Amino acid sequence: MIKVGIVGGTGYTGVELLRLLAIHPQVSLEIITSRSEAGMPVSDLYPNLRGHVDLCFTVPDDAALSTCDVVFFATPHTVAMASVPSLIDRGVRVIDLSADFRLKNIPLWEKWYNTPHTCPHLAELAVYGLPELNREAIREAQLVAVAGCYPTAVQLGYMPLLEAGLIDPQHLIADAKSGVSGAGRKASFGTMLTEASENMKAYAVAGHRHLPEIRQGLNQMHGKEVGLTFVPHLTPMIRGIHATLYSQLLKSADLQSLFEQRFADEPFVDVMPAGSHPETRSVRGANVCRIAVHQPENADTVVVLSVIDNLVKGASGQAIQNMNIMFGLDERLGINHIATLP
Amino acid sequence: MIKVGIVGGTGYTGVELLRLLAIHPQVSLEIITSRSEAGMPVSDLYPNLRGHVDLCFTVPDDAALSTCDVVFFATPHTVAMASVPSLIDRGVRVIDLSADFRLKNIPLWEKWYNTPHTCPHLAELAVYGLPELNREAIREAQLVAVAGCYPTAVQLGYMPLLEAGLIDPQHLIADAKSGVSGAGRKASFGTMLTEASENMKAYAVAGHRHLPEIRQGLNQMHGKEVGLTFVPHLTPMIRGIHATLYSQLLKSADLQSLFEQRFADEPFVDVMPAGSHPETRSVRGANVCRIAVHQPENADTVVVLSVIDNLVKGASGQAIQNMNIMFGLDERLGINHIATLP
Amino acid sequence: MIKVGIVGGTGYTGVELLRLLAIHPQVSLEIITSRSEAGMPVSDLYPNLRGHVDLCFTVPDDAALSTCDVVFFATPHTVAMASVPSLIDRGVRVIDLSADFRLKNIPLWEKWYNTPHTCPHLAELAVYGLPELNREAIREAQLVAVAGCYPTAVQLGYMPLLEAGLIDPQHLIADAKSGVSGAGRKASFGTMLTEASENMKAYAVAGHRHLPEIRQGLNQMHGKEVGLTFVPHLTPMIRGIHATLYSQLLKSADLQSLFEQRFADEPFVDVMPAGSHPETRSVRGANVCRIAVHQPENADTVVVLSVIDNLVKGASGQAIQNMNIMFGLDERLGINHIATLP
Amino acid sequence: MIKVGIVGGTGYTGVELLRLLAIHPQVSLEIITSRSEAGMPVSDLYPNLRGHVDLCFTVPDDAALSTCDVVFFATPHTVAMASVPSLIDRGVRVIDLSADFRLKNIPLWEKWYNTPHTCPHLAELAVYGLPELNREAIREAQLVAVAGCYPTAVQLGYMPLLEAGLIDPQHLIADAKSGVSGAGRKASFGTMLTEASENMKAYAVAGHRHLPEIRQGLNQMHGKEVGLTFVPHLTPMIRGIHATLYSQLLKSADLQSLFEQRFADEPFVDVMPAGSHPETRSVRGANVCRIAVHQPENADTVVVLSVIDNLVKGASGQAIQNMNIMFGLDERLGINHIATLP
Repeated sequence: MIKVGIVGGTGYTGVELLRLLAIHPQVSLEIITSRSEAGMPVSDLYPNLRGHVDLCFTVPDDAALSTCDVVFFATPHTVAMASVPSLIDRGVRVIDLSADFRLKNIPLWEKWYNTPHTCPHLAELAVYGLPELNREAIREAQLVAVAGCYPTAVQLGYMPLLEAGLIDPQHLIADAKSGVSGAGRKASFGTMLTEASENMKAYAVAGHRHLPEIRQGLNQMHGKEVGLTFVPHLTPMIRGIHATLYSQLLKSADLQSLFEQRFADEPFVDVMPAGSHPETRSVRGANVCRIAVHQPENADTVVVLSVIDNLVKGASGQAIQNMNIMFGLDERLGINHIATLP
Repeated sequence: MIKVGIVGGTGYTGVELLRLLAIHPQVSLEIITSRSEAGMPVSDLYPNLRGHVDLCFTVPDDAALSTCDVVFFATPHTVAMASVPSLIDRGVRVIDLSADFRLKNIPLWEKWYNTPHTCPHLAELAVYGLPELNREAIREAQLVAVAGCYPTAVQLGYMPLLEAGLIDPQHLIADAKSGVSGAGRKASFGTMLTEASENMKAYAVAGHRHLPEIRQGLNQMHGKEVGLTFVPHLTPMIRGIHATLYSQLLKSADLQSLFEQRFADEPFVDVMPAGSHPETRSVRGANVCRIAVHQPENADTVVVLSVIDNLVKGASGQAIQNMNIMFGLDERLGINHIATLP
Repeated sequence: MIKVGIVGGTGYTGVELLRLLAIHPQVSLEIITSRSEAGMPVSDLYPNLRGHVDLCFTVPDDAALSTCDVVFFATPHTVAMASVPSLIDRGVRVIDLSADFRLKNIPLWEKWYNTPHTCPHLAELAVYGLPELNREAIREAQLVAVAGCYPTAVQLGYMPLLEAGLIDPQHLIADAKSGVSGAGRKASFGTMLTEASENMKAYAVAGHRHLPEIRQGLNQMHGKEVGLTFVPHLTPMIRGIHATLYSQLLKSADLQSLFEQRFADEPFVDVMPAGSHPETRSVRGANVCRIAVHQPENADTVVVLSVIDNLVKGASGQAIQNMNIMFGLDERLGINHIATLP
Repeated sequence: MIKVGIVGGTGYTGVELLRLLAIHPQVSLEIITSRSEAGMPVSDLYPNLRGHVDLCFTVPDDAALSTCDVVFFATPHTVAMASVPSLIDRGVRVIDLSADFRLKNIPLWEKWYNTPHTCPHLAELAVYGLPELNREAIREAQLVAVAGCYPTAVQLGYMPLLEAGLIDPQHLIADAKSGVSGAGRKASFGTMLTEASENMKAYAVAGHRHLPEIRQGLNQMHGKEVGLTFVPHLTPMIRGIHATLYSQLLKSADLQSLFEQRFADEPFVDVMPAGSHPETRSVRGANVCRIAVHQPENADTVVVLSVIDNLVKGASGQAIQNMNIMFGLDERLGINHIATLP
């Protein structure tokens, strides 16, 4: 059994980790920390866990955490940066769901997160945890920076096209729609039901923190700098991301085959039949990205539709997928759930 | 492995059976029928099942179904009534999610369903599939009539009070709120998003088909006829029933202890701590009924709050719970999922 | 033109007052105050008002406010209590949407609001602003305490039955369902879309602040103390209250006629045809209460269904209805809108 | 008073016409037709109209309709085509909300609507009813084909850029998100709350009927053929369209000024301040299009955000705006409502 600790378990990615890890057949949940809720049974905060998780939140403690085989960080940015180094020194493997170690370019990170990065050497060491891009490196990684939610949906959608060099890399347009849980579990006006339901809006058009992360991944696929416009939208639903990806074809190709072949061996990417319109609800609660590729009117604009559950394939499920790879388990173990529909 | 067939798999209780049975460790899914969709892969209709269920819908066929150990009926009323007898004759065990065999009083059934009952002897043979009420009879049953959604939430909530004789049985008031999936998967004006969202309404105040079913169960607990007013409401959500149950106390008692003791050994009834307000989302996708009991201002009105997922503990999950009991399995096997929250 | 000021215009009842008053043909909007947003154009906070309201928020100032003919308070409790006395002294008429002056019983107010009442003499002077109950007193009132949202829906529903002495006043049960805007415009976990959508729950079963207010009104109708159990529920929608009211008939009567006659001259109470199920969406944005009365199975339990828009007939619309009465205008002026449906 | 008839009043654009026309100060509602509901009071179908509209649905009758000054068609396509000619012959002015007369290219219309066009000469005569594009022609028009919902949002957003020749017209990308009411009031699986809520999906990526209509308008602005990719999405809300419009700048310009000047005299287009993200709820129930223009990172991709209420500025409100123009009234008369928020 893999002994698991979770730092910062009160947010939505934390409770989703608990939901998934509590029934993972090779995991023993040892520790879940929260400064603010220390002493409280986890199931008091999240009644869905009643009868399934008996742990109480504890104050973070490196000595205790270092008895774990792996520690997940489900914390706001800058927390992992402060705490991960000592765990790494003690030989613990770390899977960070926050953005602290995702960018290799430290000045870029500091610009977008508007704070100094205190741990550049670990950012360099960290493996970016998108298995479809970096599976081999993940196996041996001591520190994995799990890909973000928007970045997962967008990168998987562009991956076959960029790797095949089929599209103009200078004018990529990613129009993404996210459910409200992407904003995390923090009370704010904008995410109140009264403000966010029966409503649709774009946000952060001038620039979103996931933009440099997405670009970094697309650059890796393309081999050099891409040009990307990324517009996120807030959608009146709890879970789900729908990325609609536009690009200009440079030459004709059998796009359906291209996508099917690229993801043929991927357990968690499902290329839908030609003409499909994947729905976010078809992945609700499941660790899967469903993708369809379209070429309207056979013109030179290709449209990729890519959907994930932002809390699963976009966060906690993908984190466990990384863990399975790191520990040599079947990659599907414990996360091969069926989406709940309706 | 238990060989399982499903008749009528296109509705919401059908797809929910599939979601749960596909990963049940002791089940082999053999057949799923649908006249209208025969030949179509199940996962074309329900993309969430892609990669998990390879079956195609087939035309119902008694010979094929009789090779199964158990057949679930997830059909509109009158379908099971017509098809179950021959399966029973062939020795197949049947779990019916429809209303055909729930009422022992045939004239009453015929009045509420406004059609002749063609199979009264099986209605008599059938065991009413509410495990908390009839577990022993379910073990040996050849035919189980799974309790309905409203009836499950209401009966479990009144059970400790009526069995203990603590309340006036003549003026029970059950105010129930259901998500829209309770109306099934059929296109109608009233269940369109444009009609049902941002809206709340009561319906069928003059009389709902679940009323005689609830009364039958409450009568069994009380030992004689109860008086019940039942008002269902349509709530703008997909899943969930919240029953708010009112009754007049005849004598004082420790209600919290009463409820905790009554359900102490029940794997799927969770009595919440005193003062709790159970939420439907805490049971979303899970086979559990969460209950809280209140006595506002210590007056003589007791208020019970009872929540279930209408498609799980109110239908398909409970059907599998019955199956587990019938086949001598651990009652929790394959249905002990954690609710998805948020 | 009536010169109008609004104190505390940033909340939902404030913006709703603005939406309605901005097009009221006899109103001149003079002042809208907010300490926190002083200097900001109102339409920056509420873009729906762009092009319709040019005012900026200002710091509350008694001298300025006293140039108004009437001042609305759309503030949390205790604010009006502190500021109204000096306006009253200056001869300004005041319409308070908060709870400060609703209860005549000061110790009761202090118990439920858990703070001393600093202005008991104005609580005595204030007229409870439910026009259907107190129209004549409202005409001459200098200070009106507008009825709350739940209290409006519940009192109007019980009014004909209690006034006619037809029901047992000791075991009234009011099961009420409210949209989330009833909780006001303040960021909190419980009202986030991620927490409140796809969910149904009761709250404050042990006691809600609207309970004594409702009882006070019902007592006035009945002539002595009634017994009431009141259970509010949070419903996943923005606007709307659906009150389902239960009581025991003492003698038989033509309930439909009773209701129609009681409200025949009421411009904002609509008794629906027998057998109706009023929907909250049928009053969305409109200053109307729609009511239906049922007697299921002709038994002795009467069920009244009463719906309002909590922000209109339950708050801001009703406040303006009071204003129209106070200033001798047509009671419907400026608030006779049609609900937006769908 | 303008005597008004409505053909096909049972759909959502019909009820919205009624909501708006019932309080229009220069309109007398004379006739509302529906074959299926003839004889039924309009307010039985739409309870929000109780007390405001006393008409009953009648069978369509040309003689009766020809006593009106203007007749609105709120019908599925092909209905107006069959009935409008005789009204035009009788000198009645017609405002058609359907697609029958929107396209000038008849073969194109026949291809997209897959049926012969029986009235090409009226399609030529008809004025396309987008006031911001064709105001002068609308004044004298006998037949107006009101612009569709997506086409209104998309055309207004691209209008300043195309008219100024600032963008590459060959690779326009319009990513549009619509509430479910855009699908009309017809029961279907896809628009059930259980199917459409908590979900996001694209549809008709291969080609949507609004595509040629949008292209026709953009061609008019540009002066020749544009290239457009249009991807509509179904969003879990009742009302609202959010169009996110992408294009490549050919030269730099002060885009904010460009938009502000272009729409300075437009009563129903609101250019938001630089940096804004307009929300669909800010136009809910109101006849306004709110627009913001962005140039992320000062790169060459311009992003326009354009929101409308699909049933108001995208249908019934715009139809009345056309009527006001046709009859020489203040263009704002009767439709200058404030959006309901929250």
